[in-house]
Amino acid sequence: MSGARNISAALRRARIPRPRLAVRPIVAPSQCATALRSFSASSTVRADRQIKYTSDAYPNLKRNPEFGEISVEDVAFFKQLLGSESAVIDGVTTDATDDIEPFNGDWMRKYRGHTKLVLKPGSTEEVSKVLKYCNDRKLAVVPQGGNTGLVGGSVPVFDEIVINTSRMNQIRSFDPASGVLVADAGVILEVADQYLAERDHMFPLDLGAKGSCHIGGNVSTNAGGLRLLRYGSLHGTVLGLEAVLPDGTIVDALSTLRKNNTGYDLKQLFIGSEGTIGMVTAVSIICPPRPKAVNVAYFGLESFEQVQQAYLAAKGQLSEILSAFELMDGRSQGLVIESTGNKHPLEGEYPFYCLVETSGSNSEHDMEKLESFLESVMSDGIVADGVLAQDETQFQALWRWREGITEALSHLGGTYKYDVSIPLSDLYQLVEDCKARLTEMGFVGDDDSFPVRAVVGYGHMGDSNLHLNVSVRQYNKEVEKAIEPWVYEWIQKRNGSISAEHGLGVAKREFIGYSQNETMVNLMKQLKAVYDPNGIMNPYKYI
Amino acid sequence: MSGARNISAALRRARIPRPRLAVRPIVAPSQCATALRSFSASSTVRADRQIKYTSDAYPNLKRNPEFGEISVEDVAFFKQLLGSESAVIDGVTTDATDDIEPFNGDWMRKYRGHTKLVLKPGSTEEVSKVLKYCNDRKLAVVPQGGNTGLVGGSVPVFDEIVINTSRMNQIRSFDPASGVLVADAGVILEVADQYLAERDHMFPLDLGAKGSCHIGGNVSTNAGGLRLLRYGSLHGTVLGLEAVLPDGTIVDALSTLRKNNTGYDLKQLFIGSEGTIGMVTAVSIICPPRPKAVNVAYFGLESFEQVQQAYLAAKGQLSEILSAFELMDGRSQGLVIESTGNKHPLEGEYPFYCLVETSGSNSEHDMEKLESFLESVMSDGIVADGVLAQDETQFQALWRWREGITEALSHLGGTYKYDVSIPLSDLYQLVEDCKARLTEMGFVGDDDSFPVRAVVGYGHMGDSNLHLNVSVRQYNKEVEKAIEPWVYEWIQKRNGSISAEHGLGVAKREFIGYSQNETMVNLMKQLKAVYDPNGIMNPYKYI
Repeated sequence: MSGARNISAALRRARIPRPRLAVRPIVAPSQCATALRSFSASSTVRADRQIKYTSDAYPNLKRNPEFGEISVEDVAFFKQLLGSESAVIDGVTTDATDDIEPFNGDWMRKYRGHTKLVLKPGSTEEVSKVLKYCNDRKLAVVPQGGNTGLVGGSVPVFDEIVINTSRMNQIRSFDPASGVLVADAGVILEVADQYLAERDHMFPLDLGAKGSCHIGGNVSTNAGGLRLLRYGSLHGTVLGLEAVLPDGTIVDALSTLRKNNTGYDLKQLFIGSEGTIGMVTAVSIICPPRPKAVNVAYFGLESFEQVQQAYLAAKGQLSEILSAFELMDGRSQGLVIESTGNKHPLEGEYPFYCLVETSGSNSEHDMEKLESFLESVMSDGIVADGVLAQDETQFQALWRWREGITEALSHLGGTYKYDVSIPLSDLYQLVEDCKARLTEMGFVGDDDSFPVRAVVGYGHMGDSNLHLNVSVRQYNKEVEKAIEPWVYEWIQKRNGSISAEHGLGVAKREFIGYSQNETMVNLMKQLKAVYDPNGIMNPYKYI
Repeated sequence: MSGARNISAALRRARIPRPRLAVRPIVAPSQCATALRSFSASSTVRADRQIKYTSDAYPNLKRNPEFGEISVEDVAFFKQLLGSESAVIDGVTTDATDDIEPFNGDWMRKYRGHTKLVLKPGSTEEVSKVLKYCNDRKLAVVPQGGNTGLVGGSVPVFDEIVINTSRMNQIRSFDPASGVLVADAGVILEVADQYLAERDHMFPLDLGAKGSCHIGGNVSTNAGGLRLLRYGSLHGTVLGLEAVLPDGTIVDALSTLRKNNTGYDLKQLFIGSEGTIGMVTAVSIICPPRPKAVNVAYFGLESFEQVQQAYLAAKGQLSEILSAFELMDGRSQGLVIESTGNKHPLEGEYPFYCLVETSGSNSEHDMEKLESFLESVMSDGIVADGVLAQDETQFQALWRWREGITEALSHLGGTYKYDVSIPLSDLYQLVEDCKARLTEMGFVGDDDSFPVRAVVGYGHMGDSNLHLNVSVRQYNKEVEKAIEPWVYEWIQKRNGSISAEHGLGVAKREFIGYSQNETMVNLMKQLKAVYDPNGIMNPYKYI
């Protein structure tokens, strides 16, 4: 890697830089986001022609006959209400298929609905009027943000009306003393973070889809992302919410206070419920000061045992400056090479790679801690080789080896994605066991006659959160049946979670019982009935 | 202060220690806790003779005639169910007044109930059977932990049965790799923290009553405490809960996973709802590694403007190692001197004092950051004088000037306590305005003919959380009327919270409308009706 300091070399040769490695130009972060955005747009256009309807893929899903059908009068009402031409995409009275299809499908090209109407309200009051009307007419709806989800949670199954947040995209306020940001649900995560960067703060959430996803969607799905181990979950950082219930009630819980113990913390119910009880329209969130020094190291390890040792060493020695500890297996990095053609930053090949990031307020202190950590893990034989980014370009380049996996996989074909929490010691065993199972069953191979290209694992080691990905040449029902429910049973036996951060959506609608007991599921159904008695909010999903 | 480094001296004289100040011996932390415990016990015994019944103090509260009366048969049932003699304190069939009174009153000596029955179940199953029986018989109950609350939330008003968690006091598990602790609700906070200390971790919550309060009570009241600005709120750190609903349903949401997005996060409803929808029986919580280096500095400042500057400087410069930033006004410190006779650590007198704590993994780095911060705030004229603790004894001694305020005040008579969140710039104005108002009304004075001894302010500056305390020679209805609802109106105008961390209980039952709008209150009532249709859970409180 160009100019990156090689750690083993540094240790062996008193930190004399190794000869520069030739690497291809690196995509800067804003470009990555653009790439992801344009990729997702193009893939959903292709979805129009190639992707199976979700209603066909899940034949046991039947349209709820209680729901109303969208009439010409309904469309006229919405057009009058929302005023602006661009606020209604009308496939009911006109042929707007091309315009509507991006809202019907997900960027993974796995889910496709039949909606003929997309609404883009411009204010909370408009959302309230839309929902009240839909509730009165029993018209089912799907709240949708940037539509970057991975479980089909933000796209319709049948003719549900899509209510998209893209026109609600204003930052409402920011207080630099407290670090509290208040913003509309439709603000793009990266836009919010850039706004904060100009004010020496950062959004306490970061994830690969940041260039497209909306913060309202992040909150509705309780997104976790890359730095949860440092900044905590949205249940802790979200201070207030504004949301609309299906009957049009505006829930104004948009507190900007760090502490407010005045009754039930109802906003929590909207965090992670995937738009099934109401629609989030604004978020108040506490944002940490932007770190003055950020470092990233990337290294190769010989075993998962050593990955665990490296994690514990990082937790102990980097402590308060540790901001990410990511795991990538050798196969996942091989697929990134295959997809991008980029030269790998390390010379040798290893079964495991880790990316360790520190964020702190004093670059000298941080570098001293990081170097001392690296020296200890290398002298203890835990880490085999590694590089340390020396500038912003290298920093971004190293992160691309982690963040680029999802995109690389999607370029290579389809992917069965499982986002799970498992106790740390068992984390990677799931990948081994899944690969062994699919290999034994004859699904895995290098040439095109085998449906499975690779079984890979990566994820947020610091959160015990594994992404098991089965890369396939095309989606294949036999392969899917070989994985599910086997994978869920495997996780249940270890008291893990079948969805660490992606949510349940359509993909895991039948599997909630593997991670929640009957009492919990019944209590959820009870609440759903309280808030959404007609069941119009994001139906056919997990509840 | 013995051996403490004086910062101005350090700056002026190249860090040559000033002559040692003579200070009285310091109470070690465990002794503080004991002192608080025994104080609270003795005060509740005195409550028996002197304290007004809550039902008399709040004559508009009427016993709900729908509730059953405890019969001899009920007592027999509970005795048989709970087995152990010590598990039932029976004032129904025997005269057990002395044993029962500590459970009827709070340690502040402001609230006193009429209960004749205290139950101490030993397991979740016993709690379930007790609640189911009570629900069937419509017997009202009050869940109670260490009974250290400040708003009368954990004591009965009429004859509600007290269900105390003190016999459910086992640590269930701890995983050093993830830092996740699972423990019964009745484990004392300090016991949990000591257990974790032996395993190089710490409880992510700390507060003055740690020697007595139970972690189940902490969670039920969403306690905030001294280090929320570093470790976040319980909504973020609590990973799982076990609770019992009034109908006996055991809610097993005791996940130990950092990430688990499988449906509604129902456990959040029990955090901060003060036992009004169910009773917490166990907690799963993520605990950070115990810091290897902890420092504390204490300084005097000439104005609140400078306090704000000092806070922003600490946030910017101490950043990731800042673990507490506490504010104490001059009067509060004067009362601690008056009550304890201890010599103050600074020589001059200042209108404001701050305590700044750092917690990190490298003592050299931390000290360098702290000294650089102190040098900058002193050379900028923000801080007038200060000391830095040089050892554990001094560390504890400095903290006592903050933590000892509550106890000092209580030794001097009664205290009207207001625990509020206000935007930072207005934080101290409330104390000034309140003092001016009470002075104008002729309530404030130095001799015993005046009801009000002092109006003081202190609190968690880093959380924008002020404790306004009006120290009175005896509780006085006229003084109370002069403060309430004036104080709540003052806070409402600034979009603050009338209860930052203490909760609502009986004290603020009528005032929720100052911090929550009608929609929110109605949604809370709706949920209360869903979970507790008979209303037996902690009645007569805020909901």
